[in-house]
Amino acid sequence: MKLLNTVCALAVVLGTSSMAETIATGDLGLIIERATGSVLLVDQSDRAALHRIEGLGDLSHASLVYSSDERFAYVFGRDGGLTKVDIVDRKIAKRVVQAGNSIGGAISDDGKLVAVSNYEPGGVRVFDAETLELVADIPTGSKTIGLVDAPGSKFVFTMWDTGETWIADMSTGTAEITKIKDMGDRPYDALITGNGRTYITGLFGEDGLTALDLWAENPEPIRVLQNYGRGQEEMPVYKMPHLEGWADTGSDFVLPAVGHHEVLWIDSDTLQETGRTKTHGQPVFAMARPDGRHVWVNFAHPLNDTIQVIDTVTKQIVHEFKPGPAVLHMEFTPRGHEVWLSVRDAGKVMIYDTETFEKLREIEAESPSGIFFTARAHRTGL
Amino acid sequence: MKLLNTVCALAVVLGTSSMAETIATGDLGLIIERATGSVLLVDQSDRAALHRIEGLGDLSHASLVYSSDERFAYVFGRDGGLTKVDIVDRKIAKRVVQAGNSIGGAISDDGKLVAVSNYEPGGVRVFDAETLELVADIPTGSKTIGLVDAPGSKFVFTMWDTGETWIADMSTGTAEITKIKDMGDRPYDALITGNGRTYITGLFGEDGLTALDLWAENPEPIRVLQNYGRGQEEMPVYKMPHLEGWADTGSDFVLPAVGHHEVLWIDSDTLQETGRTKTHGQPVFAMARPDGRHVWVNFAHPLNDTIQVIDTVTKQIVHEFKPGPAVLHMEFTPRGHEVWLSVRDAGKVMIYDTETFEKLREIEAESPSGIFFTARAHRTGL
Repeated sequence: MKLLNTVCALAVVLGTSSMAETIATGDLGLIIERATGSVLLVDQSDRAALHRIEGLGDLSHASLVYSSDERFAYVFGRDGGLTKVDIVDRKIAKRVVQAGNSIGGAISDDGKLVAVSNYEPGGVRVFDAETLELVADIPTGSKTIGLVDAPGSKFVFTMWDTGETWIADMSTGTAEITKIKDMGDRPYDALITGNGRTYITGLFGEDGLTALDLWAENPEPIRVLQNYGRGQEEMPVYKMPHLEGWADTGSDFVLPAVGHHEVLWIDSDTLQETGRTKTHGQPVFAMARPDGRHVWVNFAHPLNDTIQVIDTVTKQIVHEFKPGPAVLHMEFTPRGHEVWLSVRDAGKVMIYDTETFEKLREIEAESPSGIFFTARAHRTGL
Repeated sequence: MKLLNTVCALAVVLGTSSMAETIATGDLGLIIERATGSVLLVDQSDRAALHRIEGLGDLSHASLVYSSDERFAYVFGRDGGLTKVDIVDRKIAKRVVQAGNSIGGAISDDGKLVAVSNYEPGGVRVFDAETLELVADIPTGSKTIGLVDAPGSKFVFTMWDTGETWIADMSTGTAEITKIKDMGDRPYDALITGNGRTYITGLFGEDGLTALDLWAENPEPIRVLQNYGRGQEEMPVYKMPHLEGWADTGSDFVLPAVGHHEVLWIDSDTLQETGRTKTHGQPVFAMARPDGRHVWVNFAHPLNDTIQVIDTVTKQIVHEFKPGPAVLHMEFTPRGHEVWLSVRDAGKVMIYDTETFEKLREIEAESPSGIFFTARAHRTGL
């Protein structure tokens, strides 16, 4: 009987070992390890790495979204791979290669559909979040960028080649498409506000940005900052900035400029410019701390060892430091008391207190890039 | 060996049975069953009740907050009980009776401290979230209301008797108190905006509300809607409205009026009134759908069988229906596609599609009141 107990105890331990400490998933996260095709499971409260999951293909420029129960991550690889990762069992649950070259994805507000935007062949494919079976194939005849989810089982995305934005309403089970023309010359990225109302595209081929009010009966392009753009000055663009992160301070938004060493402030009601703040380099991400009081900015090569922190009331830089070589991404804890930074060429993720700017911990990671906490499951457009 | 395997298999099953389906916690929730001192664990995605947890004492007017990993709920009972519920193991993890009569609580942004506000004896007590050991006792000499968490390990609360608001900064481990006088006559409830910037108290003893800008160096009372109040008309107040729920449409807030059959619209920048919408009865909760496009309103007895839905652009009522007797609370799914309603005297929680208003499911519950989904863990001031 003693042997029996010992063997049984062992069985219980083995049976649950793979999910040892992770039975609640609210404060977990995944970090993209771009060079090795792996993701690192981390615990935000313990500031710790828990497990490495491998075999996800080409993860350069990869991103991911979470299921609404915060159990599964859907990882969008550059090679067209769509990988469903189970963070409870710490393994790949399913993987399909759905296109030749993809550029990001989104999950519907009900958690039932995962959409991927593709360069080759250009378009959007929508998959069942449970099985990864194809639900809808939406060819666009163009490289497709700026794919986001919107309330009401909608996906919104934009065509680099034709300058159109399409809204795909999936609420009936098949894609009902609304097309909006004339968004501008070569849109390169887009964002949607946290409430799902305003969609904004950045433009590569002309000055300014273009917004859509998705609450309007018939949304029409609204030109924003037409006196601003990449064309006026002779500065090379080292890296196109990401529009995903922006601050909403209650009255203003802040956006990274393209090709300039500055961020731009826009009144969130009128979409008029309210100011600019000079920065250390060409901004890549301008990310709001969740309370909106500070914006953290990282920069394009060769100035990508530096972070600047801007106060959103005064629009002044209040802190600057050099975490290390190639700071690629930032992720705040959901309520903003800490921030995690990927410092790729140091092979580390660094964790800072956002009030004192003190470094709290370093975690080893293989060429870390994107950091994604599970709290994203509950947000629109991330 | 076959026996051994069978016994071991049984051991494994028993060892994990209590957490069978709930190892990811992102889409779970608890419903307060006020008459029986129990809470009902529910799954938002499956629209299902999972388990009843009993022995929580007097849960009339109870509320709760979640740990940052979405595993533990801290339930604040009317009888001064503070109960830590483990939703993975589906049982009470710890329980203390910390005062004679309490009125709500909050959790710090780092998840380490739980605060409770008390009527008897009047004040706030702060507990270690892990052990429930007392960390700080803050007597106020007054019934204490409107306790919320704010960024930077702060708690903010207000005194019914003296009209003061106190900010307790717990970041050094002991409570450093800032006192703000002259918030008004008999504040009865308060709220903090989602970004943690603006704290607003409702007043029972005089017209208007009082706001604080917590980003200011020295926050001072700002009078709001001084031409509005309960005093001008001879309407009895059947139930004081809750200020917890309000809509932020980007430019406006909406608040339930006191004693009047209407909700009030306030410009979120200037705090000036921008409109009123007549309603079916005295509003209790005016809750924004997470996208801010609609506000759902329930009402005080005897008109508490009805829900009205208001469009925040037109400020017009777009839908009205009667779910059943005594609709006490509403909770939206984190991204707003569904809403759960507690219909106390029907003994049911009802789930609706927020786009079509179609009823999707009913769940049996014992006198249900507050509904709390785990996504609250990631928000400020809920």
